[in-house]
Amino acid sequence: LPRPGTISKATMKHILVLGAGRSSYSLIQYLLRLAPTEGWTITVGDANVGAAREKILTVGGQPHPLASVTPFDGTDELAGDNLMIGADLVISLLPPHLHIHIAKACLKFGRPLITASYVSGEMRALDAEARARGVLLLNECGLDPGLDHASAMQAIHQLQAQGARLTAFRSYTGGLIAPGSDNNPWQYKFTWNPRNVVLAGQGTAKYIVNGQYKYVPYHRLFAHTEPITVAGYGQFEGYPNRDSLAYRETYGLQNIPTMIRGTLRRQGFCEAWNTFVQLGMTDDSYVMENLASLSRREFTNSFLQYSRVHLVEEKIARIMNQPVDSPLIDKLRWLGLLGHERLGLERATPAQVLQKILEERWQLGPTDQDMIVMQHQFEYVTDEDKYLLTSSLVALGDSPLNTAMAKTVGLPLGIAAKLVLGGQIGLSGVHLPIRPEIYRPMLAELAKLDLRFVEQVQKLGV
Amino acid sequence: LPRPGTISKATMKHILVLGAGRSSYSLIQYLLRLAPTEGWTITVGDANVGAAREKILTVGGQPHPLASVTPFDGTDELAGDNLMIGADLVISLLPPHLHIHIAKACLKFGRPLITASYVSGEMRALDAEARARGVLLLNECGLDPGLDHASAMQAIHQLQAQGARLTAFRSYTGGLIAPGSDNNPWQYKFTWNPRNVVLAGQGTAKYIVNGQYKYVPYHRLFAHTEPITVAGYGQFEGYPNRDSLAYRETYGLQNIPTMIRGTLRRQGFCEAWNTFVQLGMTDDSYVMENLASLSRREFTNSFLQYSRVHLVEEKIARIMNQPVDSPLIDKLRWLGLLGHERLGLERATPAQVLQKILEERWQLGPTDQDMIVMQHQFEYVTDEDKYLLTSSLVALGDSPLNTAMAKTVGLPLGIAAKLVLGGQIGLSGVHLPIRPEIYRPMLAELAKLDLRFVEQVQKLGV
Repeated sequence: LPRPGTISKATMKHILVLGAGRSSYSLIQYLLRLAPTEGWTITVGDANVGAAREKILTVGGQPHPLASVTPFDGTDELAGDNLMIGADLVISLLPPHLHIHIAKACLKFGRPLITASYVSGEMRALDAEARARGVLLLNECGLDPGLDHASAMQAIHQLQAQGARLTAFRSYTGGLIAPGSDNNPWQYKFTWNPRNVVLAGQGTAKYIVNGQYKYVPYHRLFAHTEPITVAGYGQFEGYPNRDSLAYRETYGLQNIPTMIRGTLRRQGFCEAWNTFVQLGMTDDSYVMENLASLSRREFTNSFLQYSRVHLVEEKIARIMNQPVDSPLIDKLRWLGLLGHERLGLERATPAQVLQKILEERWQLGPTDQDMIVMQHQFEYVTDEDKYLLTSSLVALGDSPLNTAMAKTVGLPLGIAAKLVLGGQIGLSGVHLPIRPEIYRPMLAELAKLDLRFVEQVQKLGV
Repeated sequence: LPRPGTISKATMKHILVLGAGRSSYSLIQYLLRLAPTEGWTITVGDANVGAAREKILTVGGQPHPLASVTPFDGTDELAGDNLMIGADLVISLLPPHLHIHIAKACLKFGRPLITASYVSGEMRALDAEARARGVLLLNECGLDPGLDHASAMQAIHQLQAQGARLTAFRSYTGGLIAPGSDNNPWQYKFTWNPRNVVLAGQGTAKYIVNGQYKYVPYHRLFAHTEPITVAGYGQFEGYPNRDSLAYRETYGLQNIPTMIRGTLRRQGFCEAWNTFVQLGMTDDSYVMENLASLSRREFTNSFLQYSRVHLVEEKIARIMNQPVDSPLIDKLRWLGLLGHERLGLERATPAQVLQKILEERWQLGPTDQDMIVMQHQFEYVTDEDKYLLTSSLVALGDSPLNTAMAKTVGLPLGIAAKLVLGGQIGLSGVHLPIRPEIYRPMLAELAKLDLRFVEQVQKLGV
């Protein structure tokens, strides 16, 4: 490492990273790798200072000399202001609902902000003020949202430049387990916030197919999947995300007849997960009665009609329209949902109970490797012919800290920070990584870091 | 009619009725019948003064001399206070969310209040203050809640007085159409607020069976019915209400192993209504896109997966696990949901569209007669034997104004008013009609008015 002193203090830039959760490691390590040559110092703020400290360690196990940590709980306005004053750029990985406070502080002190979260209504409302003050608030700059936007927009702009007319855009992303660690009947482990996984999809999914608007209620979402193939990685299935419609505007595809964004799982996962949805086990709106006395089997039976005759397995099989000896029932049995152990919880919602049971069985082992899969499908017409362009990314985790999830969320953020500090993005206001001046250098640098999309074109019949 | 002057002004009592909607007619007419002999005057307040005026007409078509009407919109605090000052008792049929304001005004002026609405948390919180001020706030005093509580408590107290131990309580109520007007494939018409019918059951139903707590999510509610027989009226089916558990406490049945309260429909209704729930047509949380251009069939197809091959009928049949020529599909066709007419709506939620379509087909005709059905089932043990007591009420509408619904909601309210003004209920605080001093005279008077429960006891096997 060059000594910090080789760049004069006057030109040093200071980056404030708020939030030191799972996905921050690759980001912080990326920033630290560039810090000596770019002339950066980095402060990582988190309520859990230990977690922050872990992220700034060098290979030698020492804190990086250009990095520091600070306690910060995300809601302390005064502490936030103090940190903000000393920063040239802020990257926030805090829980999404805190971003509005951070954004307002960034406006107050004129600091650019980068987040990986969806633009909320409140955030969007800051656009005019941010433009007036010349401050960039760059959101949706992680994996999904983030890398999905950047890669989709690059392909869309390239196709449009070739004179193609887009007729369909479908895009699916999933945080999964790598083939070498794929050793349970669900082909799934928690590589991400378990609570978000348990609650995923609640609401109504909205998309459009051949000009027909489609609405899928939560209780039919997981019965409503599309098969997806990724060359070299086999079969997946995708279920639609909450709102695929808003991105027609964002991507400049207002009149595209088909637009759907979704989430990827391995084949068979959604059908089995649908059991939890059908039974009401993902409900987070009420606390269950008498939990302390229940076994796991009794917990499951709480969602099934009373019967003197039929077993829990039979009742589930009937609701799910499956035989009792189906792989679906095997998956539930493997999780322990049909067993006689106590739950070990006193007060919890169904979703909290389910999460606890899943966390025991879907925990990442110390040698487990995660995997991110993203696939875009673009259908387009040129002259008389119709084509399908498939663009797929597969990322594998390098280590328990440098997971595929951490890399694909963190590196786009880190690259965006580099572009902003380097003066390469002349934007102010609320933005997404959908413009060439952002996505082009971002995708180029990601490719150097081994995060590459593989494209394939096929001609379609009419 | 005796002239008002026959009772001295000093002893006249003034009743304020707030809300002149559908269910107010029988109440107001009951009060007016007793007014001359009881020495009452009645003021009816409603935002729609015409609706209020209609309810105080005598058989001769003239306004009753002891009644007056006044404009009142339920939110005008000053107007409410002015009305309250002149009243000896207030009966509110306003929308439930307004009751808390009315209750606070009643406390301020020391006036007793009677409502037909569920006790909200806010209402319950007024209990101590109401006791301190000696004011009665009597809620849940209509049909359901109301008459169900009164009649159940009378039976429960009688059984307990005979030394019986209750092992199960099930209670179902439905607002339906009388056999003579039962002339559509749904065996249903709107006899009550259509919006409430469309949104009914959203949330999770909670009840207990043989000591097992059961939770039924909305999307399985209508597949989760119990057959109910009412002597002379045939077959019905009941689906569970939102919260059956809270009434164990209310009824003093804390340890009863089985407790369920539910809603009655004619056989086959729930299976067909379940189509709307499964498709997501009762969702009131988002506005649909592009509604103005849609036919009814296209509206229905919005909730079904895109297909170049399968008809709307086939897609519904598959989801509902029924043949395409099933009575279920016939019911949808009869409603017009599969037809090509425009919707005629610009901006609406799915639930609003569905309501509009249903209102056209389920409208009460001028000669249609409605019907209220209530059935309680009590299982109990005495000595060594186990019994089932079934207690059923059927009420039929007398006229388009004096409907079964208006009578069964309004008469318990009116009788409660008479008991309160007559000094027969020495209670203050927040109450329900579950105490002998209320339910005994109430049920006795209802029987005179031809609202009678028919009881039947059978011995059960063990």
